[in-house]
Amino acid sequence: MTQLLRVQNFGVSSDGIGAGEHQSLENPFGLDHSGMFAWAGATASWPMRTDPGGSRGLDDYFTRDYPRNIGAEIMGRNKFGPYRGPWKDLEWQGWWGDEPPFHTPVFVMTHHTRPSLTLSDTTFHFVEGDPATVLEQAREAADGKDVRLGGGVTTIRQFLDADLVDTMHVVVSPVTYGSGLRLWESPEELLDRFHLDVVPSPSGVVHHLFWRK
Amino acid sequence: MTQLLRVQNFGVSSDGIGAGEHQSLENPFGLDHSGMFAWAGATASWPMRTDPGGSRGLDDYFTRDYPRNIGAEIMGRNKFGPYRGPWKDLEWQGWWGDEPPFHTPVFVMTHHTRPSLTLSDTTFHFVEGDPATVLEQAREAADGKDVRLGGGVTTIRQFLDADLVDTMHVVVSPVTYGSGLRLWESPEELLDRFHLDVVPSPSGVVHHLFWRK
Repeated sequence: MTQLLRVQNFGVSSDGIGAGEHQSLENPFGLDHSGMFAWAGATASWPMRTDPGGSRGLDDYFTRDYPRNIGAEIMGRNKFGPYRGPWKDLEWQGWWGDEPPFHTPVFVMTHHTRPSLTLSDTTFHFVEGDPATVLEQAREAADGKDVRLGGGVTTIRQFLDADLVDTMHVVVSPVTYGSGLRLWESPEELLDRFHLDVVPSPSGVVHHLFWRK
Repeated sequence: MTQLLRVQNFGVSSDGIGAGEHQSLENPFGLDHSGMFAWAGATASWPMRTDPGGSRGLDDYFTRDYPRNIGAEIMGRNKFGPYRGPWKDLEWQGWWGDEPPFHTPVFVMTHHTRPSLTLSDTTFHFVEGDPATVLEQAREAADGKDVRLGGGVTTIRQFLDADLVDTMHVVVSPVTYGSGLRLWESPEELLDRFHLDVVPSPSGVVHHLFWRK
């Protein structure tokens, strides 16, 4: 079986911006992006859900597909924490708490490596290398399953530029940010290499489903 | 965890007809319904697929959700075979071949029981009883997982009338049959008990996603 590299549930604003400026320890996504995740939080299969409710319509197909056949994740350093440059505090264990929602090995791309870190059933490995090299490591760890590319924008752009992404699910929210890290000017930029289904959801977001031609 | 009863990938015509008249050994769905399954056959995750191609857009989310967390299926006798009344030929092992696509216990509802039948990793049990009783048996066999309600129309109507269905995915194709077994006059009949997302697919079918209020 082919091991796909999949982007899933990645949120951007209507102007294509994924992560705001001014990221900090208190604001992992920079400026207020809470509205960009409301669609997921309303579903029955949202991994952070603590009560038994939630919708089981279109949006729930996307949240419940999140762990399906995933054996590893790749993320940029900024999805692990806000710090730049050499690590100053190895005691700080990232934004994801004692029970990270990944449940697989996670490869954090960084120029500043540090020892691997295990929290519950998630192990973070800190790796340096180009996208193809890191993908090779993640595929081996995934043991035949697919690899999720977790973001942020800079990391996804790197893998798109190297033509390593097989499928990509981007959720466009009806908000505009104007400035910040931009995934695209328009989704049509990718149509030379990808098929695209554009699926408006009753919740107000528009799911963009890309798969390699 | 709650064990849901789920209808999945159930196809009807634009006038709500699921199984045609004149069902026979050669024509499991009665009159020609092949157009109603084209959307599924085009996807990468279609269980009957024999080549590595196929789309990975919206429709593929539905075909790949088909086995997720399913531990048993319930079906009407007419989904197993065309014969009515007492079994005349126990050698005939149903429509599903040596490798049925279910991979779980399957409970076939019939007034004419016969010994259970195992084909590869699917075992068909032939059971008599009202919907609630059969669901209880299927839930026990599903071992904590959900139960799929496989159809046909008559069986789904029975479980809807008994208010036992938790989620229902019905795929409406742009064909009209005029006569045959009818799931509904209109999907709006179910809105007193279910939420509904109506999701048109680029393939031309319209996915109807119901979940219990």
